Amino acid sequence: MILDIINKKRLGEELSYKELDYFFNGYLNGDIPDYQMSSLLMAICINGMTDEEIFSLTKIFIDSGDVLDFSDIPGIKVDKHSTGGIGDKTTLVIAPIVAACGVPVIKMSGRGLGYTGGTIDKLESIKGYRVDLSDEEIIKQVHDINIVVTGQTADLVPIDKVIYALRDVTATVSSIPLIASSIMSKKIAGGADKILIDIKVGNGALLQTEADALKLKELMIKIGEFYGKEVRCIISDMDTPLGFAVGNSLEVNEAIAVLKNQEKENNFVNLCYELASNMVSMGLEITLDEARKKVKNVLEDGSAYNKFVELVKYQGGDIDSIKVSEKSKNIKALKTGKISEINALEVGKLSLALGAGKISINDKIDYTVGVELKKLVGDSVKKGDVLATIYYNKSIPDYNVDDMFKIV
Amino acid sequence: MILDIINKKRLGEELSYKELDYFFNGYLNGDIPDYQMSSLLMAICINGMTDEEIFSLTKIFIDSGDVLDFSDIPGIKVDKHSTGGIGDKTTLVIAPIVAACGVPVIKMSGRGLGYTGGTIDKLESIKGYRVDLSDEEIIKQVHDINIVVTGQTADLVPIDKVIYALRDVTATVSSIPLIASSIMSKKIAGGADKILIDIKVGNGALLQTEADALKLKELMIKIGEFYGKEVRCIISDMDTPLGFAVGNSLEVNEAIAVLKNQEKENNFVNLCYELASNMVSMGLEITLDEARKKVKNVLEDGSAYNKFVELVKYQGGDIDSIKVSEKSKNIKALKTGKISEINALEVGKLSLALGAGKISINDKIDYTVGVELKKLVGDSVKKGDVLATIYYNKSIPDYNVDDMFKIV
Repeated sequence: MILDIINKKRLGEELSYKELDYFFNGYLNGDIPDYQMSSLLMAICINGMTDEEIFSLTKIFIDSGDVLDFSDIPGIKVDKHSTGGIGDKTTLVIAPIVAACGVPVIKMSGRGLGYTGGTIDKLESIKGYRVDLSDEEIIKQVHDINIVVTGQTADLVPIDKVIYALRDVTATVSSIPLIASSIMSKKIAGGADKILIDIKVGNGALLQTEADALKLKELMIKIGEFYGKEVRCIISDMDTPLGFAVGNSLEVNEAIAVLKNQEKENNFVNLCYELASNMVSMGLEITLDEARKKVKNVLEDGSAYNKFVELVKYQGGDIDSIKVSEKSKNIKALKTGKISEINALEVGKLSLALGAGKISINDKIDYTVGVELKKLVGDSVKKGDVLATIYYNKSIPDYNVDDMFKIV
Repeated sequence: MILDIINKKRLGEELSYKELDYFFNGYLNGDIPDYQMSSLLMAICINGMTDEEIFSLTKIFIDSGDVLDFSDIPGIKVDKHSTGGIGDKTTLVIAPIVAACGVPVIKMSGRGLGYTGGTIDKLESIKGYRVDLSDEEIIKQVHDINIVVTGQTADLVPIDKVIYALRDVTATVSSIPLIASSIMSKKIAGGADKILIDIKVGNGALLQTEADALKLKELMIKIGEFYGKEVRCIISDMDTPLGFAVGNSLEVNEAIAVLKNQEKENNFVNLCYELASNMVSMGLEITLDEARKKVKNVLEDGSAYNKFVELVKYQGGDIDSIKVSEKSKNIKALKTGKISEINALEVGKLSLALGAGKISINDKIDYTVGVELKKLVGDSVKKGDVLATIYYNKSIPDYNVDDMFKIV
């Protein structure tokens, strides 16, 4: 049975719901060993999956754990997911904006591993901020202030956890059907009414090409249709880091500046506008133009920032505690010209090496370190101008300016 | 490095000798876990390998263990390999024929697992027959009687053993590049000057299509050219069992009957002629027609059978000890007509279920059981005629006459 299933997928044939269920739950239960699952995963990676298979797999994933139900909370619950990027602190900005616009926000975020940080890690750079709320606390908080940003409470999609860990070490991460099932099952099990996905493309992202991003988009919309849930996807660039800051406290500070409406337009600010407007449009069932106006209003009248302050306070955080390391070093331009490229992956690697992220599960995060860009793509610089500031604690890892900044 | 290598093959790119060496020897040493090797194997299975990769892999396989050298023994040593079939006792017949024709035969055979039996298991149905000769004993015996059929002595191609065990449980057996490297590395490490391969195609074989067999043939000849060794391949049918007997003692008895020249032409007799003639032609460097005459002669004048008797005696076996179970049951034709098909896989399954083979490594073989066909494909039968006799010891497993015999 096990070998028959692997063989079918090796030959590019379609697996039934029953076969997928047997295999994936068998793996979760420990009846099917790693080496057989990785063999099947590679066959899926190369030969793909039909829509039917993807719907089946998503269902099997969802059914493997708890499914949350927030139907008692009035309003349309819109969840957002990003496929992960360097300097991606969008949740910190858009959750308060959307809540301030009147859409209930229950955001359960994750931790980072590798180059891409997690929202929960970023929030933990605020002293006292609790990320382990119970279901009861979540419900109460949404009723009280219309917003919650916490870690995952229930045992959602346990199959995804074990499969993801195996994909990570068997070079089977970049399978679009597997990515789609993984994301959509978590969002659906998480109780979302509608789902907005931010698909990143570029050297700092899981997906490297626009074509793959479009495939993933199409697939997630189809899965949404299958489950009767509206899904929108934004495809956004991840060749360049998002905004100025990469590193936990630095990113929270940047998010605060955007919420205070102190930032000019840049790739991060624009993406926040776009994502927040879509969530508001979905949550209030209004046009995107109407939603854009509301988003602009809550940023200008201070209610978005106030919502963030309210959130941090309610979850026990001290907003004045955010601390950036006092040790810093400037990266200077080696020549005069215009910045044509800031390599997201290289900036991410440097930030990780500084201690802002975890390389392995047991690493400790240093919330105070990171890289702050002083110039963005398109800016003109003179030789000797400060391109970025490195905030460090122990030592500064090796880096190459030319790998990070292309000046032409 | 590990993930980079798997990723390259996932994308269908060529791996270098260095990369393959790192990965396969890393696996042999225990540095690379099963789940990463099975992921790579599946990628190889689906995306294939270039000729360069196959040559590299074959070399890595050979270099992983001992390499035998029989250059002190005069004459061209021709080794034969069969990809495995139901009722395949050809080695028992052709080794004595070829030796009787004057070509030195050093045949190291294996044990069976699953439907296809191994020559060593078959020989062990002869009481006292030693299959564990040392290298010194082998050399002496070839000098004395020009023939040895024993188990593998040295630690040949240890990588193949671990890889084969993993392929077996991850549905990655049917990869033509992996099959070719596995077979050719063992034959080359085994000290053969020239190699004859019997490629089986059909429902009872590893390969199901003629096209795959042709690909494998072409590949093995190329590997041979790379190593400067003549390789010939015979593609033979395995939809139908070979000859009459399936099961250890039964097969030895059939082989003896062929060696005594008591059998009429049938698929097994014809294949033995073909293989033996090729080996003699390669070993004596004569034409195939000349070789065929020699083969015919040694069968007619009794020297082939005498060589077999000499072999069994020299290795300590008692030729009169071969025993078939006294308990038997006839399978009768359910209707009148002509036999259009005898399903090799179904006969193999029945024989295995009777205890003639091992399902798992620790099973014990019952040498006395098996299936003896009384009719072959093309024979006309009347309802109630005996189609086959089942020799059993404990009980007769379930079987379906119509699945085994198609009568039209």
